[in-house]
Amino acid sequence: MQALVINKGIHFDGKYPQPLPKPGEAVIKTLLGGICATDIELLKGYADFNGVAGHEFVGIVEQADNPALIGKRVVGEINTPCNSCPTCNRGDGNHCPNRLALGIRMQNGVFAERFTLSQANLHLVPDSLSDRQALFTEPLAAALEILSQIHIGPKDSVAILGDGKLGLLIAQVLALTGCDLLLIGRHPERLKLLTRQTVKACSTDQLPKGYSAKIVVECTGNSRGFAQARKLVQPRGCLVLKSSYSENCLVDLSSMVVDEITLIGSRCGPFAAALRLLESGLIETEPLIEAEFSLNQGVEAFETAQQKGTMKVLLRC
Amino acid sequence: MQALVINKGIHFDGKYPQPLPKPGEAVIKTLLGGICATDIELLKGYADFNGVAGHEFVGIVEQADNPALIGKRVVGEINTPCNSCPTCNRGDGNHCPNRLALGIRMQNGVFAERFTLSQANLHLVPDSLSDRQALFTEPLAAALEILSQIHIGPKDSVAILGDGKLGLLIAQVLALTGCDLLLIGRHPERLKLLTRQTVKACSTDQLPKGYSAKIVVECTGNSRGFAQARKLVQPRGCLVLKSSYSENCLVDLSSMVVDEITLIGSRCGPFAAALRLLESGLIETEPLIEAEFSLNQGVEAFETAQQKGTMKVLLRC
Repeated sequence: MQALVINKGIHFDGKYPQPLPKPGEAVIKTLLGGICATDIELLKGYADFNGVAGHEFVGIVEQADNPALIGKRVVGEINTPCNSCPTCNRGDGNHCPNRLALGIRMQNGVFAERFTLSQANLHLVPDSLSDRQALFTEPLAAALEILSQIHIGPKDSVAILGDGKLGLLIAQVLALTGCDLLLIGRHPERLKLLTRQTVKACSTDQLPKGYSAKIVVECTGNSRGFAQARKLVQPRGCLVLKSSYSENCLVDLSSMVVDEITLIGSRCGPFAAALRLLESGLIETEPLIEAEFSLNQGVEAFETAQQKGTMKVLLRC
Repeated sequence: MQALVINKGIHFDGKYPQPLPKPGEAVIKTLLGGICATDIELLKGYADFNGVAGHEFVGIVEQADNPALIGKRVVGEINTPCNSCPTCNRGDGNHCPNRLALGIRMQNGVFAERFTLSQANLHLVPDSLSDRQALFTEPLAAALEILSQIHIGPKDSVAILGDGKLGLLIAQVLALTGCDLLLIGRHPERLKLLTRQTVKACSTDQLPKGYSAKIVVECTGNSRGFAQARKLVQPRGCLVLKSSYSENCLVDLSSMVVDEITLIGSRCGPFAAALRLLESGLIETEPLIEAEFSLNQGVEAFETAQQKGTMKVLLRC
């Protein structure tokens, strides 16, 4: 079958072996895949991954033990826990040290004609959602994870640093709380793409003098963003980290003690809630799409996705 | 008057000028002072402080606008806010950017015959408490700050890294929650000093294989402690930082995103609650005292306090 494979760079393979399902896994035909910033970091060596790339998908179940799934359109959670270690027994399978992670860790991904994934990870896509909308379930769930972790109330000041595709999703989600929100990035004009909600935005050099926020979400995707986010957060405030990147950061931990800052790492989130929000029509996704490529144009698609300031690049499989 | 002055090292001065109260300040005669790890860091250049050292004290009010205070035995909060900036207006005077901090920032400290402090910062000491007990109000409040910031329940696993005097206070406070507590340090034999509560303790090399905790409190007082604390905290767990030190730390922020770790800086805490707990008799302080020196032996007292593994050193003024 056709597949996009990470092995010291990204390569198109027209004769990749068909996947073989393990017990409990479904075989899924990929309809649409999305290239995420993590996929780009994998190319640079993050997580030391070799294999079929991709974890954002919409697909059709071709084969499964559960007959109710067959022929259904699905999205899927990326982490498959072992269900038998102490972390799993605490109910935290998403952080199981033995977990598979689709297209990231010990499991081939979705940029192929077919792939396998545990049936327990699948969520049915409502008919009212297009493939292009449903593709955003995974990143929207990651945005919603912030609200699973901390309470953001209507009186809170919140800054989002980074106006990439994840920043624009997070902005739409956090704006629903009624909080005093500011999106800070290099492309504030992008906000004009969003028509259903008005989000205030500015570039770093337009920031009002002395501006600070109680909650700062860092999603610039690079380590310089951390230093900037740290400066913007108020004492006793909360700094939410959404980016993962290869380098370590030099951090002044004493200043975080003196200012009593809370720093919180935030990753994958609730798929069911993301699907509900997409169905509600409150979240716009179409303006976040840069381009759609076919699978055999995958190398070109990755080249586009790697250009600075590119929005979501899709792969039609 | 006699005073211990930080100015490139610590010096005894027998003819230091008497303090002059500003409006709203009381003049306090020091009865007893305590040397804290922060005082030692100040000697190394932390916070760039010159002046009379010390912020832990029990004293007698000699002069004050409020007649009810005069002649009373008091302890006092160390931060004096400006009460007019945006941070103060948010109700967070403890983090006012213009704040004075007793013996740390723009205000002479307590290791002298007399010092001044805002009347608003003072708390009356109940008669049932000795000077030596009341001296622990400030560090006990700092220990209690953890419970102001996060909820620790009886089913939580909690590790405290560092069995210095702050670690032993934190251990006594957190044990009151009924949590599954382990104190990790170099001197587990110290726990035998505490007779009212049984706290489990071990040294780093005695840690059970694979041990981890939901909440890890770092109070080793050095940057190596951070790396060790990070390894012990479970995914989705919380790492509480109580130490401040001069160096920056290299931190793998991406692993904190992947593991969804919460890191929380923790500093000064509630004095009234600390006095209630001391009165209740639940917290032992006497075993935490290393030695008591007179003010004119202050340089020697600092030498003792700087030796590794020393407990609380007191200065009788």
